[in-house]
Amino acid sequence: MSKSTNLPIQLESVTSRTLQEQIYLGIRRSIGEGLIDPRRRLPSTRALADSLGVSRTTVLLAIETLLAEGFLESRPRRGIYVAEQPPAIADERAVERHSPARHPLLSRRGQALAAANPADRRTVGAEPRAFRLGTPALDLFPTALWARLARECVRTTRHAALDYGPLAGYAPLREAIAEQVRTRGTRCDPQQVIIVAGAQRALDLIFHLLLDAGDTAWMEEPGYTGARAALIAAGARIIPCQVDGDGMRIDDTHTAARLAYVTPSHQFPLGVAMSLERRRQLLAWARRERAWIVEDDYDCDFRYEARPLPCLHALDPDGRVIYVGTFSKALFPAMRLGFLVVPYDLIESISRGRLASDLHAPLLEQRVLAEFMNRGHYERHLRRMQTAYAERLDALRTAIRTTGLPLELRPVHAGIHAVADLRGADAEAVWLEANARKVEVMPLGHYYAHGGEPANALVLGFGSVRPAAIRAGTRALALAIQAARGTGVA
Amino acid sequence: MSKSTNLPIQLESVTSRTLQEQIYLGIRRSIGEGLIDPRRRLPSTRALADSLGVSRTTVLLAIETLLAEGFLESRPRRGIYVAEQPPAIADERAVERHSPARHPLLSRRGQALAAANPADRRTVGAEPRAFRLGTPALDLFPTALWARLARECVRTTRHAALDYGPLAGYAPLREAIAEQVRTRGTRCDPQQVIIVAGAQRALDLIFHLLLDAGDTAWMEEPGYTGARAALIAAGARIIPCQVDGDGMRIDDTHTAARLAYVTPSHQFPLGVAMSLERRRQLLAWARRERAWIVEDDYDCDFRYEARPLPCLHALDPDGRVIYVGTFSKALFPAMRLGFLVVPYDLIESISRGRLASDLHAPLLEQRVLAEFMNRGHYERHLRRMQTAYAERLDALRTAIRTTGLPLELRPVHAGIHAVADLRGADAEAVWLEANARKVEVMPLGHYYAHGGEPANALVLGFGSVRPAAIRAGTRALALAIQAARGTGVA
Repeated sequence: MSKSTNLPIQLESVTSRTLQEQIYLGIRRSIGEGLIDPRRRLPSTRALADSLGVSRTTVLLAIETLLAEGFLESRPRRGIYVAEQPPAIADERAVERHSPARHPLLSRRGQALAAANPADRRTVGAEPRAFRLGTPALDLFPTALWARLARECVRTTRHAALDYGPLAGYAPLREAIAEQVRTRGTRCDPQQVIIVAGAQRALDLIFHLLLDAGDTAWMEEPGYTGARAALIAAGARIIPCQVDGDGMRIDDTHTAARLAYVTPSHQFPLGVAMSLERRRQLLAWARRERAWIVEDDYDCDFRYEARPLPCLHALDPDGRVIYVGTFSKALFPAMRLGFLVVPYDLIESISRGRLASDLHAPLLEQRVLAEFMNRGHYERHLRRMQTAYAERLDALRTAIRTTGLPLELRPVHAGIHAVADLRGADAEAVWLEANARKVEVMPLGHYYAHGGEPANALVLGFGSVRPAAIRAGTRALALAIQAARGTGVA
Repeated sequence: MSKSTNLPIQLESVTSRTLQEQIYLGIRRSIGEGLIDPRRRLPSTRALADSLGVSRTTVLLAIETLLAEGFLESRPRRGIYVAEQPPAIADERAVERHSPARHPLLSRRGQALAAANPADRRTVGAEPRAFRLGTPALDLFPTALWARLARECVRTTRHAALDYGPLAGYAPLREAIAEQVRTRGTRCDPQQVIIVAGAQRALDLIFHLLLDAGDTAWMEEPGYTGARAALIAAGARIIPCQVDGDGMRIDDTHTAARLAYVTPSHQFPLGVAMSLERRRQLLAWARRERAWIVEDDYDCDFRYEARPLPCLHALDPDGRVIYVGTFSKALFPAMRLGFLVVPYDLIESISRGRLASDLHAPLLEQRVLAEFMNRGHYERHLRRMQTAYAERLDALRTAIRTTGLPLELRPVHAGIHAVADLRGADAEAVWLEANARKVEVMPLGHYYAHGGEPANALVLGFGSVRPAAIRAGTRALALAIQAARGTGVA
């Protein structure tokens, strides 16, 4: 491939790079070598995609990374520009010296993975902003209390407990989690709980142990990009399953699969709950096909409506459901602790599997969390967060109405994000304009991997900032929508 | 397979279980169902292996697990017995209900992994004992200081820093590590440092990103079981490379490979240093073959002799060496922090790869470690440990001599373990007898995966306990050796 746009961007025909990476590197190199002037305006993403012969999403993802890294700037109402002072590329010469031609870079598996994972979308270290996704109300987290517990736990740790620890996790924490999971309506024996370094680690671990390369897995479409990436890493062939108002559709004539990944309590990103009938259908399918179900209950703790349906794990008499939980939403993401509830006959295999991948989760952190739970702080914190989230959701709803935004919020029965249908402007264009105004929104289309038919909608997190910031964010979003209507950016 | 011994042990012909698991489960089930009487003596491992038609190592590994779990007991001078009070198998019926016949268990990859990883060999939570391997001097760890730093770091953490963090790690820690790695004689830019949740995680991550299933990897024989497990998990075809007094042998006529895993500073388990000539040979091979070298510098901090050779990373002008470090030896294993130093052109790919597997290491722990390093505590702790280890090694040497053990210590130039050649008794038998006396030794043969010709030797950790405990352990080991000479266990 050696196409060019009216910009001096050269794409190399290097197969070890994805198209998205080639575009990213091509633009970055052109800026670094002064081939594109600072402050120059970029063509629209549509024009770039056409001239390079790639999809618009590919261009958008590359541009998103360049925006996040400061090589490009998005200016309100005007489009994307080369930054006035793009960052120095300290390692550019080193990269050149060790160019892909000199040694093989990633394996095919590694390449597939790099392609599946756009560079991190968040501006790391920045204060939470409206409408960041997946970030809980960190402003309400009791750091002073956590600090006190941390000191106490470390001080009272016997020296022997600094050695390698139990693979499945710290026993008192497994007990506390089992008790917590029972509130989801299911039996859970502490023996079945395996503590892992976050839910992503949990998915990576079980997909690797349960799937062989080439095995088929069902995945919700749209769906959680982290799960998709872990399936790709495990070499799975992903079958997208459309999601409707009752959750993932289970089509009996569908391709057979060895595993299904689902978010039944609160589908990510659509937010619907899987109906009881669908849950039964899915379990019947798993029984018939002798397949596994991975139930990701990522934000089960926050609900704004009536009694939730029992989780899949509770409806499963056969031990086919593996339940995945995280503390990133209930407490804080930087902690990196999550857990699996596994069928009895997998306990030993999974523990052994960890000897190859990570041994066990950090023990001191596990002790602190166990104390936090056992002393009742966890329950209290959840209650406080629940109230705050109801307020923040209400603030979002009111702000959209009073600002007169052309957004219609879909019903939110749980969790900390909402889907809003957008009229009169393109979600991708709004995303770019919002980015320029330091407002984080995500087009719904970003969660479709297989070219479904995404609605023109935005996914908005409402948990991470206070009502005043939600109102300010809504006003900025109004300007972004207005601008997106008027520019040729899209 | 449906063989039986003179014991009522039935092995099932279930292909989803490894032979070792079948033996383990067969014996456990027979005990649980009362088919073998408590207090009954088991046939020798050799007799069991013969009658079941499997290798003796397979039997030994199964028995080791049953000993660790308390189903069997090893009695001094008499052999292996069924425990008087074997543990209740609470989940036995649950396991039966979800028997492998009812759904597929592990993938082929998962099965290979379970077979490669015998159950954890340590008695978790027990006080460190002579001669535990891989455990540092935890008795010297300044927990009160660590507790104080933990409290301070958590208290001063901004709420925004509780959100998802930088994939490559906390910047001040990356800087501190780069400075530390420079003491190994190599240039290291903080940008190249990627913090991971322990060295095992590091190996798992890079093997998955750099190798495709079926790719060939060189591995030292004997070698580190954790690295072997991670290679198996990545689907690598492992080519064993013999180790002599100059380290791993690099045979030019050898099979081509995409990657070599080595422990050049202090080969595990033999303890030799790779000669400068071998290092150059290995680097030349990697250049010629366009292959990667993974340099595991797992216990580089402790040395008892002259100036060490520069690490491979320091000798590599091409960016082919990936350096792996851990804090499990210098500080404590329960922390689960380690790091990679990677070539420039892998920085981005590895960070992205982590989006699929674990995102990033826990941030609060990284902050505490960065403070510990930046305030000079790390250097001070290393110096204190260095002195202690020299004393403990000396205590071991003296105790072996004064106790008159038929053990000859090979030279120890670094690290916290020693290899001791054994005369007049079989290392496997000594291992079982030592186990019965709560002394931890490991037969050198356990680290050979491909049927090399292991010397009759024991691997002894000398770092984890004080000189008095080393002396007591040596006396107990003397009894174990004496007993091993007289029984038919072996």
